[in-house]
Amino acid sequence: MHKPTLHKCDGRKLLLYSRRPIAPDIEAPSAEQSGTPPNPYLRWHPLRGEWIAYADHRQNRIFLPPVEYNPLAVNIDPTHPTEVPTGDYDVAVFDNLFPTLTITAHDAPEAIVATAPGRGVCEVVVFTQDQQATLGSLPLWHLELLIEVWADRYRELGILPDVQYVMPFENRGVEVGVTLPHPHGQVYAYPFVPPVPARELQQQQAYFAEHSRGLLADLISAELTDGRRVIHANDTMLAFVPVCARYSYEVWIAPRRPAASLADLNTHERGDFARALKTVLLKYDGLWSKPFPYVMVFHQAPTDGLPHSEAHLHVEFYPPYRMPGRLKYLAGSELGAGVFTADTLPELKAKELRAVKVSIE
Amino acid sequence: MHKPTLHKCDGRKLLLYSRRPIAPDIEAPSAEQSGTPPNPYLRWHPLRGEWIAYADHRQNRIFLPPVEYNPLAVNIDPTHPTEVPTGDYDVAVFDNLFPTLTITAHDAPEAIVATAPGRGVCEVVVFTQDQQATLGSLPLWHLELLIEVWADRYRELGILPDVQYVMPFENRGVEVGVTLPHPHGQVYAYPFVPPVPARELQQQQAYFAEHSRGLLADLISAELTDGRRVIHANDTMLAFVPVCARYSYEVWIAPRRPAASLADLNTHERGDFARALKTVLLKYDGLWSKPFPYVMVFHQAPTDGLPHSEAHLHVEFYPPYRMPGRLKYLAGSELGAGVFTADTLPELKAKELRAVKVSIE
Repeated sequence: MHKPTLHKCDGRKLLLYSRRPIAPDIEAPSAEQSGTPPNPYLRWHPLRGEWIAYADHRQNRIFLPPVEYNPLAVNIDPTHPTEVPTGDYDVAVFDNLFPTLTITAHDAPEAIVATAPGRGVCEVVVFTQDQQATLGSLPLWHLELLIEVWADRYRELGILPDVQYVMPFENRGVEVGVTLPHPHGQVYAYPFVPPVPARELQQQQAYFAEHSRGLLADLISAELTDGRRVIHANDTMLAFVPVCARYSYEVWIAPRRPAASLADLNTHERGDFARALKTVLLKYDGLWSKPFPYVMVFHQAPTDGLPHSEAHLHVEFYPPYRMPGRLKYLAGSELGAGVFTADTLPELKAKELRAVKVSIE
Repeated sequence: MHKPTLHKCDGRKLLLYSRRPIAPDIEAPSAEQSGTPPNPYLRWHPLRGEWIAYADHRQNRIFLPPVEYNPLAVNIDPTHPTEVPTGDYDVAVFDNLFPTLTITAHDAPEAIVATAPGRGVCEVVVFTQDQQATLGSLPLWHLELLIEVWADRYRELGILPDVQYVMPFENRGVEVGVTLPHPHGQVYAYPFVPPVPARELQQQQAYFAEHSRGLLADLISAELTDGRRVIHANDTMLAFVPVCARYSYEVWIAPRRPAASLADLNTHERGDFARALKTVLLKYDGLWSKPFPYVMVFHQAPTDGLPHSEAHLHVEFYPPYRMPGRLKYLAGSELGAGVFTADTLPELKAKELRAVKVSIE
């Protein structure tokens, strides 16, 4: 994998990735010549026991360029610079212009609760130069490269002293708030282990202590034996609607062995992971013959310097639709109590996804 | 307070509330002659360590009556029965036709994770007979009655052996998924202490153990001293944008003393609470001169038979808008990590709400 590191004139980093050598003379464009660098910060929520990130410079996001202007497209017109250059590469990663967390954050203003600088990293991952592509339409070799890119970000951001947790994710579709249709995802590197993975790891740790086996590994075995919710199984990977799905079309993809992170996968596993990922994505889009919105998140071992033998890499998809045209709204019970109310059984939704035929060369 | 208990022909309960005596001959209508009673159940989510409620009969909800037919209106046309009768009363409460939890739930089907009957209560609270009213437009005496109704539900549902937590809430606006515009809320009575209040109580308990004072009581004192985020203060109640707001226009209302539940409020406090509630609601609607959507939830002491000296009643409002026409989407960071990213500072949003003039006789 080739990976030159470039710098934008405002100091932000740009990384290009390819299997082929990348020309050394590519220059990093910048969509905006911003003034003062952002300085986000955190406030402690004493009742919930969690940090809230405040980044008021992000309000600027509303001044979006016209829809025909795509800041994630390759830069052709120098008078309207985009974020990524022309050239022969496959994936680009750069520091978000409107980050929720930055490595240079400093001097959090005091408040009546604890505060801290919003130190961390927010990167944009441009999946491909092809504006018409989707994550699921990318060929397997491209998805395998992307998995290596995510693993590279896990390693490189994870060793930063301020970073304890690296989470790649993709928000897809206007239904989950996406404003740029160009296929892209993000990586957030947090200065703490965030509440959701922290809770999962706590559960996994307790299970491991009691059974000397992994919680997710045992769940995967049980899902395989049950079989009704399996969407795709290959040598090393399983994609399934979990028995405890909160969203109607929730799917998880995980290695069958308890690999702790993306960086732990070998070449064979990356190939299997790419195939499982593509299968799920094509089934999603095939279900109603239209682009299927979702939030896709990666949960893996923290990079906090502690051992995490309980961790088990997995991807969770949260699709907002519960049936064609009907969104699942998070309201009183979900937001106020934390209790998900599901109108559909995971077995039935898995059956629908299983029935969608996909062909991968 | 007068409160006759009626029964619908399908067995569901209907309660009417008024300060005035209610005629004894009122009969309970039923919007639908349903067949088999619903039998929701719970599955354990081992990774998150929480229960998920499955109620597949709720899919029927999609067969909604035409918009001109309002099942929460008083029943005038006997050929199209609604859920509430005509008569001289102010508030009606009845068992939800599509409950996520019912007291008669039994025999949860087995799965590869733990399951349990979805035992509990889901009630609909019709705030008023006036279809054009809103919670904020109701006169103070009516809001005071409603607070007594919520307290009554807390007491009556809380003593059921299966109920450990009673949560009144209101989802308001199509933006949070509401399909019936008639002013109404809901009460969910859970067979366990749900994750969000459980977490809050855990934090409050730890604080109490360390400081011998209440976490929320201390936060309220600090908010009062700081002053910048106070929306309304009276003798016994405080309404404020919390210093750690997750939603742009998040507001909490709480008694200044650590009352554990709605049932603990005295007449004077109910009056003050009604005034604080009406003030916040009128400011919300006045902000952009249009109905302001929100999810409103009550957090109070569990009814699990244990002492909860750490509990402190409070209402939390989660409004989905971060500016006019722009929703805050919960996506990768919020759903996948549990980290809220706020684009706006609580001080500025509080300033906007403080500037909205409201007059309450």
